[in-house]
Amino acid sequence: MSILVVGSIALDTVETPFGKADDALGGSALFFGNAASFFAPVNIVGVVGEDFDVSQIEYLRQKSVDFSGLMIESGSTFRWGGRYHKDVNMRDTLFTHLNVFETFKPVIPPHYRDSELIFLANIDPELQLDVLRQIKKPRLTVLDTMNFWINGKRDALMELVKQVDVMILNDEELCDLTGNTNIYDGGQTLLEHGLQALVIKKGQHGAVLMDREGRFLAPAYPVERVVDPTGAGDTFAGGFMGHLATCKTLDDTAFRHAVIYGTVAASFVVEDFSFNRLKQIERTDLNVRFEKIRKMTRF
Amino acid sequence: MSILVVGSIALDTVETPFGKADDALGGSALFFGNAASFFAPVNIVGVVGEDFDVSQIEYLRQKSVDFSGLMIESGSTFRWGGRYHKDVNMRDTLFTHLNVFETFKPVIPPHYRDSELIFLANIDPELQLDVLRQIKKPRLTVLDTMNFWINGKRDALMELVKQVDVMILNDEELCDLTGNTNIYDGGQTLLEHGLQALVIKKGQHGAVLMDREGRFLAPAYPVERVVDPTGAGDTFAGGFMGHLATCKTLDDTAFRHAVIYGTVAASFVVEDFSFNRLKQIERTDLNVRFEKIRKMTRF
Repeated sequence: MSILVVGSIALDTVETPFGKADDALGGSALFFGNAASFFAPVNIVGVVGEDFDVSQIEYLRQKSVDFSGLMIESGSTFRWGGRYHKDVNMRDTLFTHLNVFETFKPVIPPHYRDSELIFLANIDPELQLDVLRQIKKPRLTVLDTMNFWINGKRDALMELVKQVDVMILNDEELCDLTGNTNIYDGGQTLLEHGLQALVIKKGQHGAVLMDREGRFLAPAYPVERVVDPTGAGDTFAGGFMGHLATCKTLDDTAFRHAVIYGTVAASFVVEDFSFNRLKQIERTDLNVRFEKIRKMTRF
Repeated sequence: MSILVVGSIALDTVETPFGKADDALGGSALFFGNAASFFAPVNIVGVVGEDFDVSQIEYLRQKSVDFSGLMIESGSTFRWGGRYHKDVNMRDTLFTHLNVFETFKPVIPPHYRDSELIFLANIDPELQLDVLRQIKKPRLTVLDTMNFWINGKRDALMELVKQVDVMILNDEELCDLTGNTNIYDGGQTLLEHGLQALVIKKGQHGAVLMDREGRFLAPAYPVERVVDPTGAGDTFAGGFMGHLATCKTLDDTAFRHAVIYGTVAASFVVEDFSFNRLKQIERTDLNVRFEKIRKMTRF
């Protein structure tokens, strides 16, 4: 079952207590696609500049990631720079050069329009709505966003909440979006707007799944050495939807397992810069950590 | 199997977004004892002033809490005042009047010295060491502390870490005590000092148990309406040790269940001021939430 992701492709310059990466592959669509491709074929829609070295993504093509939705525009690729603190849960953005991403208008290629699972990575909610208009009725649509849009385009975002099946967001974003200080209250508010399920990410503290059957409290996989947290959220989403793409029934059990695969995928990506760690692992490595979490949560 | 706790007895004046309590019963020994008494007899050693109305603790006596270790000194009872923010995970201390607690020198009554489980609630580590000298070899000793002692009496604290079996502390305290920014690294450091197990509390994000058999990642029970978080940590410890007092074998399974009973006990106490909520519940209510957590973590 194929997955379509529409989002950013970026070159990240990242400093952490463990080192530095310059112009390393990043962006929501690539982090997502990389993680999801352990499970299912992925179709990517995004934009890069003429300076983008496509040979860098060749290994993803070989992992069944389809880049025929990649637009190459004149200009430079989106670049982001950040510096993480000694406590890697804190970071400062050093620069954000949108470049060709600033005028990104996603066009879904005809052969992508039948994708069964759709991930609307964090872009302008108006563009996310436009993507939904371009695709046929998919099996599952999942929405991500960020504080910038919550504050700036709340109406479009709430329209999306009505149209999609699942939303993934972090605890702060949830409180900003709903005005609740309690995440369970906030989650309930969004479910009442029509979501089938909601995943609240809490970084190193795990994630909470809320759906009509109840709540699932998932820990984060314990990582001893977080080298670079960049892309952890999108990688989580990739593991989450990757697993769902393998499920015949999208029920509470499928969603619970998907959350665990999400946290497992994220636990790998943060162990090194960019995609370095994801390049080293195979699907079985994800399964090993999945089972380890099972042991670490049983009582 | 009886439990001995040595700690503070206080009258708390607390303001939260949900209201205010004046001179309400509190202190680590009382919160702990209240929670633990759902499971086993509790012996309390603490001090109050002549102003303390002992009729207030009569209901605890009826719950098999023994107060023959309670000293009544001339002067006033320890008083603490705090104000919680809209985000109840943040608070400001408004005042701390130690009063008779300032010169507290715990004396363990002879008939308490055979207590099988000992909880050293947060007091001066020198006094905690003195308590250990007064008791016979117990089955299990559990240590709590706070940042104030970590910064001021580190050597005494590290001596305690060598002498006790289990330590309960929060993530920040762990990082302060060990100099690690990663809680798993920090936990490993303490285990290497001889602890049998370590419980790292993460407030609304749950707790992590580290012992020689591995790690247990426990969520917090989801509470929709946190009215007053005062005493949550000591109540957690009370549920934790209360359960252990019922176990024949203190193995990994016993500790895992104890952590869940800890988070369950804490989930009740925060739903109202002081002991108001704990007064309303029975042991079966703890079991109901215990099973709910099982359902919310299964996958």
